[in-house]
Amino acid sequence: MPVRKCFMTLTDEQTAEIKAQRALRSKTLRTTVPNMERHLYKAFKVLDHGFIRVIDYMGDDSAIVQAARVSYGQGTKKARDDSGLINYLMRHWHSTPFEMCEIKLHIKLPVFVARQWIRHRTANINEYSARYSILDNEFYIPSEDNLAAQSQNNNQGRGKVLKGKEAAIVLETLKSDSFRCYDNYERMLSQDGQDGLARELARMNLTMNIYTQWYWKTNLHNLFNFLRLRADSHAQYEIRVYAEEILRIIYDWVPAAVAAFKDYRLEAVQISGKGLVCIRRMLAGEKVDAKSSKMTAGEWQEFQSLIK
Amino acid sequence: MPVRKCFMTLTDEQTAEIKAQRALRSKTLRTTVPNMERHLYKAFKVLDHGFIRVIDYMGDDSAIVQAARVSYGQGTKKARDDSGLINYLMRHWHSTPFEMCEIKLHIKLPVFVARQWIRHRTANINEYSARYSILDNEFYIPSEDNLAAQSQNNNQGRGKVLKGKEAAIVLETLKSDSFRCYDNYERMLSQDGQDGLARELARMNLTMNIYTQWYWKTNLHNLFNFLRLRADSHAQYEIRVYAEEILRIIYDWVPAAVAAFKDYRLEAVQISGKGLVCIRRMLAGEKVDAKSSKMTAGEWQEFQSLIK
Amino acid sequence: MPVRKCFMTLTDEQTAEIKAQRALRSKTLRTTVPNMERHLYKAFKVLDHGFIRVIDYMGDDSAIVQAARVSYGQGTKKARDDSGLINYLMRHWHSTPFEMCEIKLHIKLPVFVARQWIRHRTANINEYSARYSILDNEFYIPSEDNLAAQSQNNNQGRGKVLKGKEAAIVLETLKSDSFRCYDNYERMLSQDGQDGLARELARMNLTMNIYTQWYWKTNLHNLFNFLRLRADSHAQYEIRVYAEEILRIIYDWVPAAVAAFKDYRLEAVQISGKGLVCIRRMLAGEKVDAKSSKMTAGEWQEFQSLIK
Amino acid sequence: MPVRKCFMTLTDEQTAEIKAQRALRSKTLRTTVPNMERHLYKAFKVLDHGFIRVIDYMGDDSAIVQAARVSYGQGTKKARDDSGLINYLMRHWHSTPFEMCEIKLHIKLPVFVARQWIRHRTANINEYSARYSILDNEFYIPSEDNLAAQSQNNNQGRGKVLKGKEAAIVLETLKSDSFRCYDNYERMLSQDGQDGLARELARMNLTMNIYTQWYWKTNLHNLFNFLRLRADSHAQYEIRVYAEEILRIIYDWVPAAVAAFKDYRLEAVQISGKGLVCIRRMLAGEKVDAKSSKMTAGEWQEFQSLIK
Repeated sequence: MPVRKCFMTLTDEQTAEIKAQRALRSKTLRTTVPNMERHLYKAFKVLDHGFIRVIDYMGDDSAIVQAARVSYGQGTKKARDDSGLINYLMRHWHSTPFEMCEIKLHIKLPVFVARQWIRHRTANINEYSARYSILDNEFYIPSEDNLAAQSQNNNQGRGKVLKGKEAAIVLETLKSDSFRCYDNYERMLSQDGQDGLARELARMNLTMNIYTQWYWKTNLHNLFNFLRLRADSHAQYEIRVYAEEILRIIYDWVPAAVAAFKDYRLEAVQISGKGLVCIRRMLAGEKVDAKSSKMTAGEWQEFQSLIK
Repeated sequence: MPVRKCFMTLTDEQTAEIKAQRALRSKTLRTTVPNMERHLYKAFKVLDHGFIRVIDYMGDDSAIVQAARVSYGQGTKKARDDSGLINYLMRHWHSTPFEMCEIKLHIKLPVFVARQWIRHRTANINEYSARYSILDNEFYIPSEDNLAAQSQNNNQGRGKVLKGKEAAIVLETLKSDSFRCYDNYERMLSQDGQDGLARELARMNLTMNIYTQWYWKTNLHNLFNFLRLRADSHAQYEIRVYAEEILRIIYDWVPAAVAAFKDYRLEAVQISGKGLVCIRRMLAGEKVDAKSSKMTAGEWQEFQSLIK
Repeated sequence: MPVRKCFMTLTDEQTAEIKAQRALRSKTLRTTVPNMERHLYKAFKVLDHGFIRVIDYMGDDSAIVQAARVSYGQGTKKARDDSGLINYLMRHWHSTPFEMCEIKLHIKLPVFVARQWIRHRTANINEYSARYSILDNEFYIPSEDNLAAQSQNNNQGRGKVLKGKEAAIVLETLKSDSFRCYDNYERMLSQDGQDGLARELARMNLTMNIYTQWYWKTNLHNLFNFLRLRADSHAQYEIRVYAEEILRIIYDWVPAAVAAFKDYRLEAVQISGKGLVCIRRMLAGEKVDAKSSKMTAGEWQEFQSLIK
Repeated sequence: MPVRKCFMTLTDEQTAEIKAQRALRSKTLRTTVPNMERHLYKAFKVLDHGFIRVIDYMGDDSAIVQAARVSYGQGTKKARDDSGLINYLMRHWHSTPFEMCEIKLHIKLPVFVARQWIRHRTANINEYSARYSILDNEFYIPSEDNLAAQSQNNNQGRGKVLKGKEAAIVLETLKSDSFRCYDNYERMLSQDGQDGLARELARMNLTMNIYTQWYWKTNLHNLFNFLRLRADSHAQYEIRVYAEEILRIIYDWVPAAVAAFKDYRLEAVQISGKGLVCIRRMLAGEKVDAKSSKMTAGEWQEFQSLIK
């Protein structure tokens, strides 16, 4: 198989458009976050050809406080007071004030990741249409570190990294199948000496590691729901890296809200009613075992792993 | 009954807070709409004590185009091209690009209007809590022009304006019941020489013309759905005036989208399959009557009123 | 003030309609839950004039399992296996299978309760229209046990029960204001010797303890979200009694799901990242105090109350 | 290439499970629609390997009327009255009563169709997980009639059917790429003499014409929104056939609502404000051309095609 040109994530033209956007500075009365302005339009690389670009944002930590109080001015003068209220809101599941912040991202991602992502329904999406346009020849090919075997104990997870010949064959297979399918896609579309298959049909010949892209807009509450599930260790690596990058970016936007989210959601645990009884008994010096916990074997095992 | 002080919509302190917000000008790389900046934070008066304030916005006409094309830069260079595409999107019910614009409003409105408003579920809301705080003594009392009789032919509408003694009695009743209930609300809450009823209970003694307020954030697509129903002549006057004011404000934000919305939604009509057949027959010179239209009496009547 | 007729919750005609519905028994191939059939159409009393009626339901515990597995048949043969999987789904926030069960309720409730209730946006609602129809003369008047003072330490809660003269005055005030406003409502509407005010206007003269009613349809996942917040001890009593009644009813519909919901949501606690570190240290025999917990005073206090 | 076994849509075991479900008949007090009962669980074939199965339904035409009136009994006695009210609700965009009917379907469909389908966000979905399970070797291969060329005048549509050698090559390409990718998928997954690639990774090697399946539950209002866009002639053939089949099925469930939907949505047209002015002028005998219509060229062309 011939050496393939490595497709760049952004063309020169796209880079120029981004540069042009970053040159336009306007004056506004709206709430503005200087740390977030630094990130606007830039392409944060994710996976081999993917990226995340911040297109716009609305609100900041103060906007959460302002909405919670339905006040006329901004939040309190002191960032520390805002932060205390934001912690309280997060702790007590008062979610509506977080909905008052909004973010719009431009994301490039493999189709199989997009299919997981879109299960989060409370967002606004415009996806690049393969019915209307021709997709670029860009496929996700995992790095060797991420070529993992099926987990032996978790139907829905990965085990150790593949090695040697098996790894080599898998990589070669993924590449050659992707590229062959793409070549045939182009061939079927071609109107050179033939009619050319409709784009809406030809696209079905592409494998699911091809990259698509979309504009994705969501509010902070729904974004946190997304991040709680997708920045979690149980999430598939290929979507988790997007979630983790978004989490890093928005820390520069709403630092108090992100801190509260980390403490009360991401790093927090839900202890069941039964589990809470066990903890209280244990803290009172009692010895508790699986049987006296009234949990099933699976529940007990998960509970043990939480508290140790 | 003694003369009552006319409650101002905004206190001096609130006016000062608004002024302070309007003094803070920042630099931003985000899409900014100069005509919309002029409206930020100001209070647009609606009804006797209500208002609409624009707190924030995201996007502009170009942002709709940019999302529809999933492009890296802004929309097309020429506003005319943007406008053509926006018309096309509206005409063909491509709603997702309109979701890429977002607006946040601070609204003060009577409770019975708020109850209609909130039926539009796809918005983010933070309402002033009468469980937590004490409501102000502000009630909607219709102007004499808006004191209408029950419609004789529409169970859900208004007829002519009440006159003379009947009007006077109604106005006096609305005022005295509102104010008596409020006085008793304050009296029950009072902790002066008594325990004082819980706020969450005392509020039930207020009539539904009392003013409440909320932060309301929605995207342009959902806002258009709201406006189509509420800026319509069948909407109740007291919510319609809010919708009409919002429509005027957002014309300065997304003029091409608003123009398309007016032509293809607000001033447009839905012609049924049967109606379309009739129009075609009539344009071909045929005479069509209720019977040959295959419509029911009600349908035929509504159809007649549309095309004349 | 004259003695007022106590309005019955249901008229004889309504009772007859309900009886007629309960007499119609059909054969169906759909999933049916005998224990739930017993509840259909009956009016479960809540507060003084309110009720909850089950109008329809879709699915059962097995339907959750069936959807989670995207299987062709029903769930597993053994209820015990279903229950294990349902616990797992609840524990790991796999919410979509719970969305496969749906319930439709007819609810009669005071307006101020309805205003809290409707903040849960992901439900289908048809409310009785006071624009179109005339409301009945039914107001919520708290029982003496529920006439609580404002809490001294919680802005959003109740303290002890009012006593003696204060209680008597409050009760009398609530009654007389409700009934006077209603009398005036009727008087303004009357077309006897006058034009009669439009219904959509007259309704604003009613106090917020008047009863309204609606059809409310939601899926089990969203219902659990509602119940977690509203069957909670922090919820206002007047909405909590509805939530608790619904919880009792649906136990007869989806017992395994309700058991999982209780253990993993209602009786569960969210322990923050900081709190989890503290618990681990304490279980390892270390002494932890407010300072070494790195929590704020408020967080530490709430944490203490959780584990004791 | 060797002859491939034609995969049946349903295994014998699945057929047996469906048969078992159809044998279980229960008694219920709920609203039941005999015509719809006939369709339960059966597999309606769509495309080469796809299907639609009705798993459950809630409500009927009367339930729409009952909710619109918030009544205690069922709808009106006479189907004709129900039908008149349903027409009125549809004509005047009163959408909430239609939300009171719910349907649950089990659908098997190609991934590229599923990607369009899921853009309708207001539905409940459980999809078969290729992270957890191994997908079946079933791919959509268009019939020769549906092998269309790219449209010359519509970037988003199809032109004439491909012929002769070009058609043969396209078919052969689609088949061989699908099957080769699937063979490699199985090979990479295999744990025979190797570790075996994780399922969540291997799935990316499959082409987008592979079949997936899901449980899809939605209310009638949202279903109509789906059908209006997807049973439309502009929709891609491969999703349109699903929409058309659903439309046929639900006619047996809610015939009055479906009739209203057809007349007022599917066969209806939206006439813009400008278009309405033109129609009125034309019906008054005036001659209207593109220029005097004040429409753009594109708008005029679409308008012309509507009224002729």
